[in-house]
Amino acid sequence: MKFLHTADWHLGKVVNGVSMLVEQQYILKQIAQIAKEEQVDGIIIAGDLYDRSVPPADAVTLLNDALLELNVTFGKAVFAISGNHDSAERVNFGSAWYEKNGLHIQGTIDAIFSPIEWNGAQVWLVPYHEPAQVRAALEDKSVRSFEDAMQAVTAKIRTEWDSDKAQILVGHAFVAGGIPSDSERQLAIGNVDRVSTNCFDGFDYVALGHLHHPHAIHHPSIFYAGSPLKYSFSEAKDKKSVRIVRMNGKKLVEVREHLLEPLHDLRIIEGYLADLVSSVVPGNEDFLQINLLDEGALIDPIGQLRAFYPNVLHLERMQEKLTEGQFERFEDVVKKDDLELFGQFFEYVSGKAISERQVALMREAMNRVKGAMEQ
Amino acid sequence: MKFLHTADWHLGKVVNGVSMLVEQQYILKQIAQIAKEEQVDGIIIAGDLYDRSVPPADAVTLLNDALLELNVTFGKAVFAISGNHDSAERVNFGSAWYEKNGLHIQGTIDAIFSPIEWNGAQVWLVPYHEPAQVRAALEDKSVRSFEDAMQAVTAKIRTEWDSDKAQILVGHAFVAGGIPSDSERQLAIGNVDRVSTNCFDGFDYVALGHLHHPHAIHHPSIFYAGSPLKYSFSEAKDKKSVRIVRMNGKKLVEVREHLLEPLHDLRIIEGYLADLVSSVVPGNEDFLQINLLDEGALIDPIGQLRAFYPNVLHLERMQEKLTEGQFERFEDVVKKDDLELFGQFFEYVSGKAISERQVALMREAMNRVKGAMEQ
Repeated sequence: MKFLHTADWHLGKVVNGVSMLVEQQYILKQIAQIAKEEQVDGIIIAGDLYDRSVPPADAVTLLNDALLELNVTFGKAVFAISGNHDSAERVNFGSAWYEKNGLHIQGTIDAIFSPIEWNGAQVWLVPYHEPAQVRAALEDKSVRSFEDAMQAVTAKIRTEWDSDKAQILVGHAFVAGGIPSDSERQLAIGNVDRVSTNCFDGFDYVALGHLHHPHAIHHPSIFYAGSPLKYSFSEAKDKKSVRIVRMNGKKLVEVREHLLEPLHDLRIIEGYLADLVSSVVPGNEDFLQINLLDEGALIDPIGQLRAFYPNVLHLERMQEKLTEGQFERFEDVVKKDDLELFGQFFEYVSGKAISERQVALMREAMNRVKGAMEQ
Repeated sequence: MKFLHTADWHLGKVVNGVSMLVEQQYILKQIAQIAKEEQVDGIIIAGDLYDRSVPPADAVTLLNDALLELNVTFGKAVFAISGNHDSAERVNFGSAWYEKNGLHIQGTIDAIFSPIEWNGAQVWLVPYHEPAQVRAALEDKSVRSFEDAMQAVTAKIRTEWDSDKAQILVGHAFVAGGIPSDSERQLAIGNVDRVSTNCFDGFDYVALGHLHHPHAIHHPSIFYAGSPLKYSFSEAKDKKSVRIVRMNGKKLVEVREHLLEPLHDLRIIEGYLADLVSSVVPGNEDFLQINLLDEGALIDPIGQLRAFYPNVLHLERMQEKLTEGQFERFEDVVKKDDLELFGQFFEYVSGKAISERQVALMREAMNRVKGAMEQ
């Protein structure tokens, strides 16, 4: 049995003001072609189908067309879940009809304990969920954290699975130790969004979405597919891919990256302005962060660069960085998360360190605000 | 062959600040029950499934569940189109999968000339469309008005249909002479949104949506189903219904209204404050406009009334109306459409009557603004 694992399509995403729709259309065509050529039996899409809960209409059409090609034209099974960027209810619309044709889309957690029997395996679709949803669904008040929720879900799955069959879990979560990029949205304030790898003990393949680096974690049975495109400059050095997975019964025979070729790359280049605008170079239409090495004032550098590099997304002045004394401190600030920053501020204002209870209160308040903002 | 014709569900609608979702859930259950008891072969929903292009998530879930009951649980064919309130692309998502199960949802006009062959009839799904869309789709520059567009569409259908079969058209349009209510959204400024009944010559049953009165027009083969609920006080005296239609070949054997019973009625009552708050009367939880006959000042009338009538949506002071000299002129203003008002204003300011060319320019400007606002 062979399948393709992808995730974090983020259809409709806008990077630094530029829509990625054409890039996404191109890469989805490529993924469909790979699925066909590799003769996989099915495709897993592990959440964040869209970039936001109400995606633009052309992103809706793009997802429809991509699923149509995979599931109807090529006749392949598709397993998709909602991620933290998706609206669970909107993604869920029509599931009852799709599954009749082997297109399994799970948006809400209602059917989380109903596995799909597929080629001798059981596939468990575990969409992105908040602790409160699992607490309510399982009527288990001890579920308070993301870790508790995933432990409770997988513990219940273990009591229900047929252990003779290959166990595949499709999830959207932040596994502790995983390396984030700049293009995921934090699930909660203050690192409480992590779940440990032992949540997934006993599963033969765990197909995850959320982290965008393809090697966000290293584990024999837990994999992030990573996003199919680079959505931030922190991913500039990534090689984006889909995973091709072969299983023989419960045994993982092969997990291989099939690299993707974007229509336009997203890269960081650096140099002096005069050199950069001396000639048109290959890849000049890529999405670029340009680090300028020049010192002193420059006349309209972005305007000059745009003539040669139409998709400049971001400009950095390296010399300013190196000479300004504030810079390192600012970098430190950027690295801190909101709770750490608040703790620092609290200490600065009150003269004493923030207590654990105060941190917990602040975390809850921040999460509530964050939750309300996303509705 | 027997079917049920309904339209203008407007799921997610809010009337005077109050969500109609519970009322809508109740009435959709009733419609499903009627479809079952009447043993119809299919259900037609002639547009405005939702109240807005991006409906709230619980309205999405409600539509899913209603279609699931009709199409999957009861196994009935369903024919649905988008109306002017719906997003064509969003409604269209997944159509390819639904139609495999006899759920025919047409959001965009791509497939407008592909009839559905059904029980010896041909069903043509003509979603709401603007003239420009038909002009582009048919590559016919002579299409400039709503009338032109509908004439062009139905003329092309006539060249393609199998005239031995019953011809059913499902559309969402404003038929000239039809009586509007206060709860439709104007399709364009200045009555250019009308299409004439002869657009539909030759069709055996034309199932329309858009106008909310069940008897918005009287015609032997063209029918509005009307909305299933009263969505404005201008509909207070309507009796809402679904149409039950029986055909024998091309012959219309029966077109009957099956009345609906809302969970709460929407009514206008009048009286003196003291009488109204003297005792709890039946129907006190209905959605009410209360016309107060009292003269002079009253202390917190809405607060007093709410204690007895929790769903008061609107309060009118009748005496104020009758005694204030401005009132009749205000009523006259309300009845005029935007172009008439502008004409009056133009004459007032410039001292001369507005010309036809000026009216046309203003109409175009208003429609552009209206179009931009709805995007």
